[in-house]
Amino acid sequence: MAPLSSAPLGSAPPRPGQETAGQAAPPVPERGAAPLRAAPGRDRGRAGRSRTCPAMSGEWLRRWRRGGPAERPGGAPAPGPGPPPPALRYRRPKFVPGGGEEAPRGGRAVRGAAPERPLPWGAGYAEVINAEKSEFNEDQAACCQISVRRREPGLEEDEEWLILCSTQFLTGHYWALFDGHGGPDAAIIASNYLHYCIKQKLEEVVGGITEAQPPMHLSGRCVCDSDPQFVEEKHIHAADLVVGALENAFQECDEVIGQEMEATNQTGGCTALAALYFQGKLYVANAGDSRAILVLKDSIVPMSSEFTPESERQRIQHLAFLFPKLLDGEFTRFEFPRRLKGDDVGHKVLYRDYFMEGWGYKTVEKADLKYPLVHGHGKQARLLGTLAVSRGLGDHQLKVIDTNIEVKPFLSCIPKVNVFDFAVHDIKEDDVLIMATDGLWDVLCNDEVAHVVRSFLAENRTDPQRFSELAKCLVCRARGKKRGHQWMLDDSHEASYDDISVFVIPLHNREED
Amino acid sequence: MAPLSSAPLGSAPPRPGQETAGQAAPPVPERGAAPLRAAPGRDRGRAGRSRTCPAMSGEWLRRWRRGGPAERPGGAPAPGPGPPPPALRYRRPKFVPGGGEEAPRGGRAVRGAAPERPLPWGAGYAEVINAEKSEFNEDQAACCQISVRRREPGLEEDEEWLILCSTQFLTGHYWALFDGHGGPDAAIIASNYLHYCIKQKLEEVVGGITEAQPPMHLSGRCVCDSDPQFVEEKHIHAADLVVGALENAFQECDEVIGQEMEATNQTGGCTALAALYFQGKLYVANAGDSRAILVLKDSIVPMSSEFTPESERQRIQHLAFLFPKLLDGEFTRFEFPRRLKGDDVGHKVLYRDYFMEGWGYKTVEKADLKYPLVHGHGKQARLLGTLAVSRGLGDHQLKVIDTNIEVKPFLSCIPKVNVFDFAVHDIKEDDVLIMATDGLWDVLCNDEVAHVVRSFLAENRTDPQRFSELAKCLVCRARGKKRGHQWMLDDSHEASYDDISVFVIPLHNREED
Repeated sequence: MAPLSSAPLGSAPPRPGQETAGQAAPPVPERGAAPLRAAPGRDRGRAGRSRTCPAMSGEWLRRWRRGGPAERPGGAPAPGPGPPPPALRYRRPKFVPGGGEEAPRGGRAVRGAAPERPLPWGAGYAEVINAEKSEFNEDQAACCQISVRRREPGLEEDEEWLILCSTQFLTGHYWALFDGHGGPDAAIIASNYLHYCIKQKLEEVVGGITEAQPPMHLSGRCVCDSDPQFVEEKHIHAADLVVGALENAFQECDEVIGQEMEATNQTGGCTALAALYFQGKLYVANAGDSRAILVLKDSIVPMSSEFTPESERQRIQHLAFLFPKLLDGEFTRFEFPRRLKGDDVGHKVLYRDYFMEGWGYKTVEKADLKYPLVHGHGKQARLLGTLAVSRGLGDHQLKVIDTNIEVKPFLSCIPKVNVFDFAVHDIKEDDVLIMATDGLWDVLCNDEVAHVVRSFLAENRTDPQRFSELAKCLVCRARGKKRGHQWMLDDSHEASYDDISVFVIPLHNREED
Repeated sequence: MAPLSSAPLGSAPPRPGQETAGQAAPPVPERGAAPLRAAPGRDRGRAGRSRTCPAMSGEWLRRWRRGGPAERPGGAPAPGPGPPPPALRYRRPKFVPGGGEEAPRGGRAVRGAAPERPLPWGAGYAEVINAEKSEFNEDQAACCQISVRRREPGLEEDEEWLILCSTQFLTGHYWALFDGHGGPDAAIIASNYLHYCIKQKLEEVVGGITEAQPPMHLSGRCVCDSDPQFVEEKHIHAADLVVGALENAFQECDEVIGQEMEATNQTGGCTALAALYFQGKLYVANAGDSRAILVLKDSIVPMSSEFTPESERQRIQHLAFLFPKLLDGEFTRFEFPRRLKGDDVGHKVLYRDYFMEGWGYKTVEKADLKYPLVHGHGKQARLLGTLAVSRGLGDHQLKVIDTNIEVKPFLSCIPKVNVFDFAVHDIKEDDVLIMATDGLWDVLCNDEVAHVVRSFLAENRTDPQRFSELAKCLVCRARGKKRGHQWMLDDSHEASYDDISVFVIPLHNREED
């Protein structure tokens, strides 16, 4: 299968010009089929195992692991108990030419998507590996069409031939970035799974999405005459079902990752930033420190906010307050501006507890000398001295080094979802959604990115590859140039040493689909 | 003591024209002194007990209850163990003339503050009792100067004569509203205590507030050379210490209320909305569903947000997820648009769990038929079928009727504090802070209130009582007029049947202090 020819999710036959790009799982997983083809390159997994697993749902995987019967999305019989699934091979996103291999490292060459097979909406993509911060480029990317099969109420399994009719599908578009840590594995799994989880969760509620107002009963049944009134009163709209589906999909994906990684003895985690265009609205779901902004003609609209140990300090401290055993006597839940020393004992120093947005003074006790649960500032802030993000997928096995303290209880896999309604905005030709991992945002602020976007697009009106070139331009700007042993920005500040990945998604093109 | 002649908190001698209004506790409580004088009226407490208690801090009260030695704010010896404190008598705020008695009820006459003794900054105040919703007007109000004693580092107790110098005090101004439920008691205690807790918490950190930047060590000691840099990096400013002091003061006050009410066998709780002007900034701390807005010449600035079972659903559900025993098998933590029925079992209905801002569909099980933890919509929303607010003070003894299920674990006494910096705003003559209990906001939105404020003040430029009259005007508008058995607004909508209390605080007058 060529990198860009995967079928769209949900088995809708691709129409001309609508082939789905990216790492889509096949519509109905088949025993032995390889939705995620092993590309040439470093094979980090074990061979000879069932390849159906990557397309499994959490529930499916759970049942399968128990050895019981499992219902498969397409109603086909489930595979029986078998050998555990293979670890996924390391590779770059499928739409990056030669993605099976890492580009030569030293020069940190910026790579884009293959120009001959455009991404959905003609989106641009570019990436660069880190400056030897870690062995792999731990960022991953995915994009595809998501075809959501619409079952009519009461549609029986034996009427499944009905769904061959293309009007039975709703089409969405999906772009996502994953920034791995502790190895590339979680990001690879997430880039292969999350869109499948989203498709599945959308299909579970699609009957409610297509109604003028989501019905109280998904079947449309009315147990209580005032059901529509109750739903109205709670202001529940179709968009809320999509938000709920995204929230549930992230949770499902996290579960799958946990099970996959346990089975294949892998470790690590990743952030996840996913954009979904569905039924005239753009949904951006974020768990981690990547960021998405809309750069419009006259304004910048932030579509995500970062979740870090600093931004989620109160949630994290509160959990430690409720369950002190999670710290196993090794950490203090209080925040101090710096690590305390023996000389501080008995004195009043600045501190914050879980309930405080402000600061107070606390008389230092010996127990306060322990390492703080949340410590450091900005990019140096760490949760349990270990992690720089507080939301994301994976990390089920992660423990604080040399202890039995688990990090996972303090992490959340739930995204915050922001919605942008195209119906109430007049989208101009150069309006774009910029999605990028923290490698970009660490060195460029929203205003700087917006400035680059607007001037680049204004100067390159006719280039058919301009969104792709813009993505490369942004990555180049953040990577900087090598001067001696350092990577420097044009303004002589230090450039980004991190992996950097950028999507540039032109919003005006959405009508073409 | 006349209603308006209480000494300012902190024993700063009142200067002419600067008498402190409201229910201030005396500077240094004296054994047998009566900081809260029993006014004529319904005496709901027991007589003959120590009257020092109302001015106690939580810690002080705790020690005193244990019978151990207690340090008193002024360094004087603590009262020994003695009889428990008296319950406070029901009365209206001291600055309301004839406040010991409730006004005749039937007509719901609007009452204001005594014109001959202006409130701080010439603020206006007005109130009206509910339309027989409860026996008492459960709203309470307080306002006063808060004099924060500034101890120089290393100042010894025997140098205390130094503090007689008036420059050793920082002066703040305070206004607060409390909306009681389950009886007026918690609101009465809070209106007598909270400003004292705030004063105390400010004094604990005042050494840090008066520095250009709060020092790492309150004493100014520098254990680590880069201490100022750490503090700088965390962006800690004097305002953060005031926010922290307010957060801690609410918690302290809640503790005191719990102890007081247990000792006097009282029950109930209250919301708390407190405004503090201190060192050039206005702080508004809110726990409950009262509201404060700034009505400026060209804009409205919301200074608080409401905390209700609906607005805090996720926090509340999450707690039940973490500690399911809190629901004792009697409630479901899931939210549904309406109460489920037996006929719903087995069907997929709209629901939300703790991690969802969106909605999903859930197959109804029998356990879902239990009463929901958070149920109802808007003003009908209830926590555990019991309470309409999710933050506030008191309610330590509150249980769900006919069960052993405690409500308190789900409540938070921590306020959200908003800060307004006068240094970066050009305040005009008619700019005001409006504080009001939900009785006002239930029937008038921010825009309507701002319209009344602006047109009233424009039409009454020269009236020296105009802020007081405006407060009355706002209360009148929300109370409406009686038509038959109903209270109606001018636009024929139903008026407010609740207690209504309003402060109108002119911001331009602040320079005069």
